[in-house]
Amino acid sequence: MRERIASEIDEALARPGGEAELLEKVSPLPLFDLSEVVLEVEPESRLKLVSLLPADIAAGVLEYLEPEEQYRILHKLSKEVAKPLLNAMSSDAVVDMLLAIHPHQAERLLAWLPKEYRDKIDELMTFPEGTAGSLATVDYIAVRESWTVERTLEHIRKVANEAEVVSYAYVVNAMGQLTDVVSMRELILADPKARLGDIANNYVISVKAHTDQEEAARILSQYDFVALPVVDDKGRLIGVVTVDDLFDVVRDEATEDVQKLGGSQPLEGSYFETPVGVLFRKRVVWLLVLFAGQAYTSTVIRHFESTLAEAVALAFFIPLLIGTGGNTGSQTVAILVRSLAVGEVGFGDMLRVLGRELATGALLGVTLGAATYLRAVSMGLGYEIGPVVAVSGLFIVVWAAVVAGFLPLMLHRLRVDPALVSGPLITTIVDGTGLFLYFTLARIMLGLA
Amino acid sequence: MRERIASEIDEALARPGGEAELLEKVSPLPLFDLSEVVLEVEPESRLKLVSLLPADIAAGVLEYLEPEEQYRILHKLSKEVAKPLLNAMSSDAVVDMLLAIHPHQAERLLAWLPKEYRDKIDELMTFPEGTAGSLATVDYIAVRESWTVERTLEHIRKVANEAEVVSYAYVVNAMGQLTDVVSMRELILADPKARLGDIANNYVISVKAHTDQEEAARILSQYDFVALPVVDDKGRLIGVVTVDDLFDVVRDEATEDVQKLGGSQPLEGSYFETPVGVLFRKRVVWLLVLFAGQAYTSTVIRHFESTLAEAVALAFFIPLLIGTGGNTGSQTVAILVRSLAVGEVGFGDMLRVLGRELATGALLGVTLGAATYLRAVSMGLGYEIGPVVAVSGLFIVVWAAVVAGFLPLMLHRLRVDPALVSGPLITTIVDGTGLFLYFTLARIMLGLA
Repeated sequence: MRERIASEIDEALARPGGEAELLEKVSPLPLFDLSEVVLEVEPESRLKLVSLLPADIAAGVLEYLEPEEQYRILHKLSKEVAKPLLNAMSSDAVVDMLLAIHPHQAERLLAWLPKEYRDKIDELMTFPEGTAGSLATVDYIAVRESWTVERTLEHIRKVANEAEVVSYAYVVNAMGQLTDVVSMRELILADPKARLGDIANNYVISVKAHTDQEEAARILSQYDFVALPVVDDKGRLIGVVTVDDLFDVVRDEATEDVQKLGGSQPLEGSYFETPVGVLFRKRVVWLLVLFAGQAYTSTVIRHFESTLAEAVALAFFIPLLIGTGGNTGSQTVAILVRSLAVGEVGFGDMLRVLGRELATGALLGVTLGAATYLRAVSMGLGYEIGPVVAVSGLFIVVWAAVVAGFLPLMLHRLRVDPALVSGPLITTIVDGTGLFLYFTLARIMLGLA
Repeated sequence: MRERIASEIDEALARPGGEAELLEKVSPLPLFDLSEVVLEVEPESRLKLVSLLPADIAAGVLEYLEPEEQYRILHKLSKEVAKPLLNAMSSDAVVDMLLAIHPHQAERLLAWLPKEYRDKIDELMTFPEGTAGSLATVDYIAVRESWTVERTLEHIRKVANEAEVVSYAYVVNAMGQLTDVVSMRELILADPKARLGDIANNYVISVKAHTDQEEAARILSQYDFVALPVVDDKGRLIGVVTVDDLFDVVRDEATEDVQKLGGSQPLEGSYFETPVGVLFRKRVVWLLVLFAGQAYTSTVIRHFESTLAEAVALAFFIPLLIGTGGNTGSQTVAILVRSLAVGEVGFGDMLRVLGRELATGALLGVTLGAATYLRAVSMGLGYEIGPVVAVSGLFIVVWAAVVAGFLPLMLHRLRVDPALVSGPLITTIVDGTGLFLYFTLARIMLGLA
C-alpha cells in the first residue's frame, strides 16, 4: 500500500497544482506510515513533500527516520522551512541527531533554536549514552506549585501542542525542584479553584540523570508509568523519559544480551543493515578468543597421549562428555544472565545460587551420568570404560553448573556485563577442565599409563 | 523504608483509633509501593489495611499482586468490601485472576459483577494466552461518531475514574465498529461544537483479538502508542491493550528466548521462585535430547577407530575443531533468532541469509583454519596433520554458519519458535557432521586406513 501511495505522490508532485490533492491523501496517515512513505518516494519528491507538510507533522515524520537521514533532509531544505521544523521536533530526537552529525553541522543547526531551548539541548547532550538523561525530552509540561487547577489547565491548553508528554504535568517549586506529578485525570476531576500545592501527594518517583537506562526501564515498568521524570543531583527537573524510548531500550538490550550470549559482539544495526565485513569483524574477535582458550584442550589430550593410545575407545566419548558439560553450563548462564538483567538476582545471592546450581547439577549429573553409562553399554563398552564415562559425566555436569553459576554473578559484581559469559565461553572453560578430569579418572580407574 | 512503614502500620492497627493516622501515612504512596507494603505487613493487618483503603485505591494495589494472592485477599474480605473492590479492578487483571483460580471460585466472583460487565469479561476469557485479546482491558473510553466534542468531554469527565486508558477515546459507529481514535489533546484543542465524525481521521491502527502478543508489541512500539485497540473479525471494538502489559510481554519473551537459546525450557517464574526440582525438569529434557543427538559422535569416532589408532594426534584437535564450529553456529543462531523475533528477517529472506552466512562463514573459516594450522605448528605437528586440521577447520566453520542460518528460518516458516534452535542444538548437529568431515579428510589427505 505504501508503494502505491508513494507512486501516487510522485505523480501528483510532477503535475502542476497536484500539491493540494497530495496533502489530502497523506493527512489521515499516522506519522509512522507517513515516514515510510517519505522514504519510499523519489528523492526530489521527498524534499517537496516534507516542505508541504505543516511543521509539526513534518517534525513527527522526521523523528521516525535515522538521525543521519533527518540531517540530510534538514540540510537540503531552505532555512525558512527547516528552522520551524527543527523547532517542532521533540528535544530528545534533536539531541540524538546533533550527536550523530559533525559538531560543525550541529552548531549550525543549534543556532536556529531560541537561546533558552538551546541551553536545555546543550545540557541534555552532556549525558553519556545509556543514561536516563540521554533519553530525556524537555518537551514536557511544567507547572508551579502555587498555580490553581484552573490556571494549570489553561496553561496546558496553550502548550499541549508542543509537548511530547501530555498525560501528566510536572509540578516544580520556585527552585525548579520536582515536587509532584499531576495527571490530566486528577486535574479534570479536581476543584478548579484549588492550588496545586494543596491537591499534591508530595510523593513523586523520579530517576537521576545518570541512572542507567535499563534501571529507568525497570522502574517505569514496575510502576506502570508512561513517563518518568529525570532530575539532577539537586532534585531539579531536567527532563522526562517516555515509555516508547524505554520500550526500545528493553528490546535493544535484550537483543544485545542474546547476541553476547551467543558469543558475538552486539551488532549496531539490524542483520541486513550490517555489511558482511562488519559481521565478520564482530564475530571473529570472540571466535579467536574462544579458539585460544580452547587450544589448551589439545595440550590436555596430548598430555594423556599414552593413556589414549592404550584405550582408543576413550576418544569415542570426548565430544559427548564435553558437549553435555557445555550444554549444562550454557543453560545455567542463560537463566542467570536474564535474572541479573531484570534485577531478580544479585551478587549478594552468590551462596544461594551456588547451592541451587550444585543441587540441580547433582540431579542432572546423576541422570546424564547414567545416560552416558547406557550409551557405553550400547556400544559394547559397558564393562570396559562404562564406569569411567559415567563418573566423568556426573562430575563434568556438576562442575559446569557451578562454574556457570559463579562467573556471571562475579562479572556483575565487577560491573562487567554478565552476558560476556556466553554459552560458548562456558563451553570452552568446561571443555579443557572436563577432559582433564576424564582422563585422570580413566588412568586411576583403569590403571592406565 | 517499606519495612519501616509496614511496622508502623502493624503498630497503628493494633491501637484503637489508629486507622485515621494510618490512612494519612499510606495515601501519598504510589500504588506499586503500597502493594509492597501490603505484602510486608502481618496477615491480619493486610486484610484490615485493604478494607480501610478506598475501593479504587485498594483495587489498584491488588493489581500489583499475583493473581492467587489477589484471590486469597478477596476471598477473606467480607462481601461488602470485596464486591466494590472487584468491580473497581481493571478488567484485564480480573480476567488474569479468574483464569488462575478454580472455575467454581471464579463463578462465585463473576456473580458479583453487573451482567453487562460479566459478559465482557466472559468474552475476554475466551482468548488464548499469548494473544492480544487475552491482554485487552475493557476499561477504555468509547464514544460515538455522532457526538459533539463538548458531549464527548463531558462523558469522559464522568467515566474517567473507571477507565484505565484515559489519554484516548475510541470512536465507534452504530454497529460497534471502531472507526477512529481521538486523543485528549485533539479534543481539548478542537471546536467544542464539532461532531467527532467531522474531526476524525478515518484511519486507525488496531489489532485483531487473535493477533500474537509479540506482534501487537511490535506494532505499538513502531507507532510509539501507549495503547492499541483490539477488534474482532467484524471490526468491532472489544478492548484495548496498554503499553505496560506489552512492556512485560517484550521483557518476558526476551527472557524466554534467552533461556531457550541457552538450551533450557523457559521457566515460568523467576529463578528463586522456581524450586530445584522444577529447574531440574525444565533442563533435563533438553539435555537428554541433546545427549541423544550427540551420542552419534561416539559412533562416528568409532567408525574411524583404525584411522585414529594410526594417528592418535588427530584426537588432540577434536574438541578444538568441533568447539569452533559450535561457537560459529551459536553466533549465527543468536543473531538470527533475535532478528526473527523483532521482525527484521523472515522466511522469504532465506537465500539472502544463506548467501550472507556463506560469505561471513568463508571469511571466518579462512581465519580460523589458519589459526588451527598455527596451533598444529606450535605443537610440532605442522607438517604431519597441519593441512588436515586447517582444511577441516575452514569447512566446519562454513558448514556451521550455513546450517545455523537455515534452521531458524525453517522453523519460523513451520510456525515453530526459532529459539528452539539453541546454541547447544547447533553445537550438537555440527559436532557429528564436523567429525565425519575431519576424519574423512584425514584419511584422504594422510592416506590412512
